[in-house]
Amino acid sequence: MIDGTFRTVARTADGVRMIDQRRLPLEETYLDLNSPAEVATAIRDMVVRGAPAIGISAAFGLALGADQKVALDPAEFDARLRQDAEVLRASRPTAVNLGWALDRMLGVADAARAAGLDNAGVVERLERDARRIHDEDLAACRAMGRFGAGLVPGEATILTHCNAGGLATAGYGTALGVIRGAVEANKKIRVLADETRPFLQGARLTAWELQKDGIDTTLITDSMAGSLMRAGEVQLVVVGSDRIAANGDVANKIGTYSVAVLARENDVPFYVAAPMSTIDFDCPDGDLIPIEERDPTEVTELFGTRVAPPGIGVRNIAFDVTPARYVKAIVTERGIARPPFQDSLARMRDGG
Amino acid sequence: MIDGTFRTVARTADGVRMIDQRRLPLEETYLDLNSPAEVATAIRDMVVRGAPAIGISAAFGLALGADQKVALDPAEFDARLRQDAEVLRASRPTAVNLGWALDRMLGVADAARAAGLDNAGVVERLERDARRIHDEDLAACRAMGRFGAGLVPGEATILTHCNAGGLATAGYGTALGVIRGAVEANKKIRVLADETRPFLQGARLTAWELQKDGIDTTLITDSMAGSLMRAGEVQLVVVGSDRIAANGDVANKIGTYSVAVLARENDVPFYVAAPMSTIDFDCPDGDLIPIEERDPTEVTELFGTRVAPPGIGVRNIAFDVTPARYVKAIVTERGIARPPFQDSLARMRDGG
Repeated sequence: MIDGTFRTVARTADGVRMIDQRRLPLEETYLDLNSPAEVATAIRDMVVRGAPAIGISAAFGLALGADQKVALDPAEFDARLRQDAEVLRASRPTAVNLGWALDRMLGVADAARAAGLDNAGVVERLERDARRIHDEDLAACRAMGRFGAGLVPGEATILTHCNAGGLATAGYGTALGVIRGAVEANKKIRVLADETRPFLQGARLTAWELQKDGIDTTLITDSMAGSLMRAGEVQLVVVGSDRIAANGDVANKIGTYSVAVLARENDVPFYVAAPMSTIDFDCPDGDLIPIEERDPTEVTELFGTRVAPPGIGVRNIAFDVTPARYVKAIVTERGIARPPFQDSLARMRDGG
Repeated sequence: MIDGTFRTVARTADGVRMIDQRRLPLEETYLDLNSPAEVATAIRDMVVRGAPAIGISAAFGLALGADQKVALDPAEFDARLRQDAEVLRASRPTAVNLGWALDRMLGVADAARAAGLDNAGVVERLERDARRIHDEDLAACRAMGRFGAGLVPGEATILTHCNAGGLATAGYGTALGVIRGAVEANKKIRVLADETRPFLQGARLTAWELQKDGIDTTLITDSMAGSLMRAGEVQLVVVGSDRIAANGDVANKIGTYSVAVLARENDVPFYVAAPMSTIDFDCPDGDLIPIEERDPTEVTELFGTRVAPPGIGVRNIAFDVTPARYVKAIVTERGIARPPFQDSLARMRDGG
């Protein structure tokens, strides 16, 4: 079984430990975070990124904060727990898994309190649920890998954008889970990894974790993807997502929309792999998804070297929305949803 | 009249002087090259780039070499001139202007010799023709600016890819010439400049020269272009070209094809601006254009910092081909060619 040799995020005895993704691929270092505020800062600064991984990180951060407040008066404890949740929720706007994980954890706390548990009992339930969110994500990724492998021909070059891998999840990955699933099913797979400007998640993270697994991977700049599709060198595209609207519109890393349009233009199937927690059934349409804009220096500076003239205008849009009509199928831990997604995703939610 | 305050390439008393484009935008430094071989190396290393500018550089380099050989026996002089031309021709494969300028110069030398001129007379003709190639290019860019301005609405955001500016030509630019022409026609213009990985010609060069001219310019990563088109924030696209096939297929910097597909998908007109010397009437179809692949370290290293794991596979395809069906019009110094380009470009060549 293919598995990463690293841990993306873990709850330690007195903190939350994360691999520092900003320092990959050259250094594999881990940060120990000692409060929910430190976890929120790490999410904002992209120590950890990837929708499922930031949901798990927020859950661990909330459990940590609760544990540190166990001696407080119960009313104070409950109020501070909600404050911690809001600090974590504000760390990044686009990924729905963040709010999903926090709401689930707050629901667990409420249920525990309603059942008459004291602070220590609430903390225990929160710790247990955070671990479950982590473990369920890992299981969901493996299920996506099994379902998604069925979409992959026996021999294929698969293009992916950004990093929807073990580093974006509890492990194994969503889009990279599909790739790992295909490799485990003994298919002959080559991967083309878009470098994914500006943060270079493809060059730094996807290349790193696929290389660790011995999967044949070739790095390209984002602008080469279309040309290689036109040359017939790509058999399918698979990407992750930060939020999927109820109609199947997909928010994901900036550049995903371009890949989807180029894939359709060249008759290359475009797939999305994401856990059910990424689907925002309260959001009818992708154009309602909040899109984060980040610091312009991510575009104008590379490792401390200025690459653009001082004073130039810059946009740094972190995500885009791919309309559902470009998406051939969405792979979740429950199976494969096909258009029209409005219906297929709702059926999947309802277990139909 | 808008004009760059820099000189892209010039013939000096005993050499060829170029602005070192690898050091822009942070340093405006000039290199003095003292032989055709040094000019060829500068072209290969991208001290100078842009199809028209490398044609001009090669012409100056050949004239320089001829001047240095004036004391040789005439037969030896003629043979060495051809050797210099081949060294220069081999420096980059995709831009047709390079071969065009060298063939024109060799024709001038042959004609001078046939007219009975001695070495000094041949050198004088070569020097004069190299200056003409330079001056004709500048005039061609200004003509493209005037013709192209007619395609631009009174108020528009124009997206461009790579640098087809003064730095890619004798001055003024092809695609940026159209933008400058629109500004000079008092249109209200905003520019979106794709950063253009891996060499960052957009971030480093286009941003720098448009900022010098006070033109409102916003830098984006290549992967943001599609999303901004979908949001209705782009009214037209204009790019340059390194070689245009007789059928109107356009070779240009990698990523141009993606921009063209995204433009058509979003009903944004996609224009190409290039001098007649960029049109290769001997090449019937863009898929026959040789496409340069460059050193992988341009992708894996940024200003000396490694960004991808050692040992990972890399492609560094420098150009792509945009099929003519995506091109709304081609602007040359003779006017505006529209589909079918097979006919309109041939008529333009024949003065019809």
